[in-house]
Amino acid sequence: MFQTFEVTARPEQGPPRLAALRQEMTREGLDGFLVPRSDAHQGEYVAPHDERLAWLTGFTGSAGFCAVLRDVAGVFVDGRYRTQVKAQVAEVFTPVPWPEVKLSGWLREKLPRGGRVGFDPWLHSAGEIRKLTKELDGSGIELSACENLVDRIWEDQPPPPMNPVRAHPIAFAGESSTSKRARLAEGLRKAGQRAAVLTLPDSIMWLLNIRGSDVAHNPVAHGFAVLHDTGAVDLFMAEAKLRGLGDHLGPEVTVRAPDDFLGALAVLEGPVLVDEDTVPQIVAQALGDRAVFGADPCLLPKARKNAAEIAGSAEAHLRDGAAMVEFLCWLDAQAPGSLTEIDVVKRLEELRRRDDRLMEISFDTIAGTGPNGAVIHYRVTEDSNAVLEDGHLLVLDSGGQYLDGTTDVTRTIAIGAPGEQERRAFTRVMQGMIAMSRLRWPRGLAGCHIEAIARVPLWQAGQDFNHGLGHGVGAYLSVHEGPQRLSRLSDVPLEPGMILSNEPGYYREGAFGIRIENLVVVEPAPDLPEGDAGREMLCWRTLTHVPIDRRLIVADMLTAAERDWLNAYHATVAERIGPLVGGAAELWLNAATAPL
Amino acid sequence: MFQTFEVTARPEQGPPRLAALRQEMTREGLDGFLVPRSDAHQGEYVAPHDERLAWLTGFTGSAGFCAVLRDVAGVFVDGRYRTQVKAQVAEVFTPVPWPEVKLSGWLREKLPRGGRVGFDPWLHSAGEIRKLTKELDGSGIELSACENLVDRIWEDQPPPPMNPVRAHPIAFAGESSTSKRARLAEGLRKAGQRAAVLTLPDSIMWLLNIRGSDVAHNPVAHGFAVLHDTGAVDLFMAEAKLRGLGDHLGPEVTVRAPDDFLGALAVLEGPVLVDEDTVPQIVAQALGDRAVFGADPCLLPKARKNAAEIAGSAEAHLRDGAAMVEFLCWLDAQAPGSLTEIDVVKRLEELRRRDDRLMEISFDTIAGTGPNGAVIHYRVTEDSNAVLEDGHLLVLDSGGQYLDGTTDVTRTIAIGAPGEQERRAFTRVMQGMIAMSRLRWPRGLAGCHIEAIARVPLWQAGQDFNHGLGHGVGAYLSVHEGPQRLSRLSDVPLEPGMILSNEPGYYREGAFGIRIENLVVVEPAPDLPEGDAGREMLCWRTLTHVPIDRRLIVADMLTAAERDWLNAYHATVAERIGPLVGGAAELWLNAATAPL
Repeated sequence: MFQTFEVTARPEQGPPRLAALRQEMTREGLDGFLVPRSDAHQGEYVAPHDERLAWLTGFTGSAGFCAVLRDVAGVFVDGRYRTQVKAQVAEVFTPVPWPEVKLSGWLREKLPRGGRVGFDPWLHSAGEIRKLTKELDGSGIELSACENLVDRIWEDQPPPPMNPVRAHPIAFAGESSTSKRARLAEGLRKAGQRAAVLTLPDSIMWLLNIRGSDVAHNPVAHGFAVLHDTGAVDLFMAEAKLRGLGDHLGPEVTVRAPDDFLGALAVLEGPVLVDEDTVPQIVAQALGDRAVFGADPCLLPKARKNAAEIAGSAEAHLRDGAAMVEFLCWLDAQAPGSLTEIDVVKRLEELRRRDDRLMEISFDTIAGTGPNGAVIHYRVTEDSNAVLEDGHLLVLDSGGQYLDGTTDVTRTIAIGAPGEQERRAFTRVMQGMIAMSRLRWPRGLAGCHIEAIARVPLWQAGQDFNHGLGHGVGAYLSVHEGPQRLSRLSDVPLEPGMILSNEPGYYREGAFGIRIENLVVVEPAPDLPEGDAGREMLCWRTLTHVPIDRRLIVADMLTAAERDWLNAYHATVAERIGPLVGGAAELWLNAATAPL
Repeated sequence: MFQTFEVTARPEQGPPRLAALRQEMTREGLDGFLVPRSDAHQGEYVAPHDERLAWLTGFTGSAGFCAVLRDVAGVFVDGRYRTQVKAQVAEVFTPVPWPEVKLSGWLREKLPRGGRVGFDPWLHSAGEIRKLTKELDGSGIELSACENLVDRIWEDQPPPPMNPVRAHPIAFAGESSTSKRARLAEGLRKAGQRAAVLTLPDSIMWLLNIRGSDVAHNPVAHGFAVLHDTGAVDLFMAEAKLRGLGDHLGPEVTVRAPDDFLGALAVLEGPVLVDEDTVPQIVAQALGDRAVFGADPCLLPKARKNAAEIAGSAEAHLRDGAAMVEFLCWLDAQAPGSLTEIDVVKRLEELRRRDDRLMEISFDTIAGTGPNGAVIHYRVTEDSNAVLEDGHLLVLDSGGQYLDGTTDVTRTIAIGAPGEQERRAFTRVMQGMIAMSRLRWPRGLAGCHIEAIARVPLWQAGQDFNHGLGHGVGAYLSVHEGPQRLSRLSDVPLEPGMILSNEPGYYREGAFGIRIENLVVVEPAPDLPEGDAGREMLCWRTLTHVPIDRRLIVADMLTAAERDWLNAYHATVAERIGPLVGGAAELWLNAATAPL
């Protein structure tokens, strides 16, 4: 199993570790120390070696940080984790609602006479430290880069990950690393920059057409890289990870020891492009005034998938859809009350694993039944594991990391006989999903301009959901990939080839949850008979092929256009997935996709 | 008539004036001089005294500027005026597509060896000059504040406007000036600011509950004001305009001569709040480092209309709706081919003028028939005046400045038998208008987040329109009022009491135009049975009461919800406007608003 179900938080371990950390602070003459969730690569997942926040506090969320002072230790967590943090940390830790309370304001309040606050300059971005320094201006509080004090007291800290890197074949990548490097090097030369420093693992994976497994769920290896304006790359990564890859990397890529990284920066000729939002503060400092801040040059080219990547993703989605259909057919045959959430997760992973190309799951499957469905980032444990009861809705959000593509699909499934309130809310969520799926829009618009279109059916009923509509998705890379997003916060124009999720939901706390998610890829929209001459428009193609539960749809609420879209979608799903499953699952599929 | 139809552009006057201006430049040792459309108050309309751009170049558009160098004179105009400028200016002027070409880039190209470019520091905002200076950094080009050289050569320049100011009664204003000034003064004190300088006429009108007529169509008087943190105001405005207003203004408002303005700023204690986007550069310079830049403090309070202002606007809209219905009834009785655009404008103004409270029209009525309807900012002249022919669509965009409120309404009317392509496009435009009218949305969102919702029906057919969906509207003040906008560029959250236009359109150049415009006011949305607890939502109430041409609607394209909205709207219009018109117009109205 890729997924486990143990309860990892043990609050009672926190207090002695906190006391030990404070001893180290005293030794260093510090009044505070910052312990972030992030590692040096600012990713969503960190290796066990980097689980400092969880080790110290017990809090296992995917974002947040702890600010340890001499007499108070604030655990800053966002709205998703307000309940979870209370269950996971001991009383010596104080949960702080973040970002409503800013670290700078909190420090000013807790350290009214100023003080020295230490931080590990590998774990905080240059932008973060710059902003925090500015906000603390005049407070007398000083930020002081120092050794990581958690590492010093964490006796059985796991070593940094050292997993082998694999070549990502050109058949899936669609463009050689040489070509990618030449394109980016040209951009550097045009901007008068001599090099770019890359610190995001998925940027490095994309640029060099390699994949790793240093963290859970995302096929990346940890390392740093310098891309020179010649197209040559210095790759700072342990040789042990790269055995046998010499030919694949080619003569323009020089593998160097990670310990040489800072020294190499010291002698690098400027100007050097770095991304202030993600570059470790120590890296920016090593570059000094040779640093030019700008977006990581891999971000946009990586987001705009090429034809091979899109074809691979489409293929992966068909096979993933087949696994989902096998699962849904099986689930429908089980009586209400006979299964738990963990049974669901295990069965689904088992079915996905039959595919040779499955390398990992995209994230821990979210399988929340009844009230658990309303917990947006629910992860089932042995403690929370609930039975699928008659009348429940099951929210099932899962995906696979296949060699040819990354999937991420959510379906909400009726267990037994669903309630009418649930069906009406489900129908509205689906109407929003369909409205976005059908949309054509003029090129140049960003997520913030169109995201609301998927919310209108809920809004009209006085309802809404408290998360963005969708995130970017990589090509056998991170399942959460920037910069493209369907969010009211995203002003990055949507471009052909970008893959995103379209996942409206609805959550009634303590009662039920609903989410429907398809992955979609941006394409040029075909011309229409009455369309404006010269107006370039874009549209979506849906990659996900999994039936939507017809038992949860109130057909009378649909417009003709919505019904047509659904029936056409289901016809395509039946046509493409049916032959892949055959037998009982195909019969089930034909019924599940019958026209409404 | 408030509106005239003469052709005002006389290109042949330009060359001698340009030659005279260049002589003055030589005398001052200048290599260039900037002639903007704006006056010192940065409004949409300027007084004849300030029509420097039109006087020099012949170009009469509402935005743009001329950069006069020794051997080239660029007239910078935006996309709306690309055709018009060519017809209005002589060959010695060079039209420049703006903002695609920036002034700084153009100057760098035309003055490669640097040079001194003069500007009148009253006519350019501090922000504009700051940005331009920054963009010219390193070019050797120097910006030099100087006397206005156009005023020096313009022998028969009309004097500055000197029209009487009237009190705006509390019954319409809804809040006393004392109360408004106290509110704003408290804001200044909280921000540690001693005063705010106000340079926008509608801010001053709103704050002091007065109205003027110094420019066309907007009921404002020119002047400047200093609001002190005590709530007291120094009003720099010619005494002659303010006769008899002493009691209304009260003891806390001191009238001072406009010529004293700069001297008063010199001795004003700081910090002083000014709006960098609109304050004349000379004012910011007079304040020096006492200036604190921020939004004009009247903007948001003015935009959020109080109950009396909303009630007044609603009343004005009913009477304006009655005038429109009388007009539409009359128009329908005229045979195709028997009327011109000017006939339409005259008749409509005549009907509006029957209302005692009409003080002005809100803007020159746009009456474009056939191909003229596709010109978004069309103003009919004796030269362009076209006959309303069978098969034409007539775009009629007009409004009134009533004592109790400002109206702005657009209807598109079928002349004779409309074509099917036109009807389908009209139906889509109306579907967009209805989608926005019906919308409920969570409080906190801005125009940029929801504007697209009105475009979706057009987008789905490959169509779109090249203007924003709507603008803010004042309460017997500017018909274009910020900061609220329904535009993808506006991130100002929509708040209860804001009045905006909802005006999608469609334009096929050389063929036809369509626009439908209602004014709408933001209100708290009523609770709904299945709505989320604690989720604050907003909605629109429609102020405009004028039938939408049923002959242009393809009923089969509508959803049930769209048809219901239209029928309910028409029923309300018939119920409220019918009694105001009576007779033949009421009969016509009943037919025009029959359920679809």
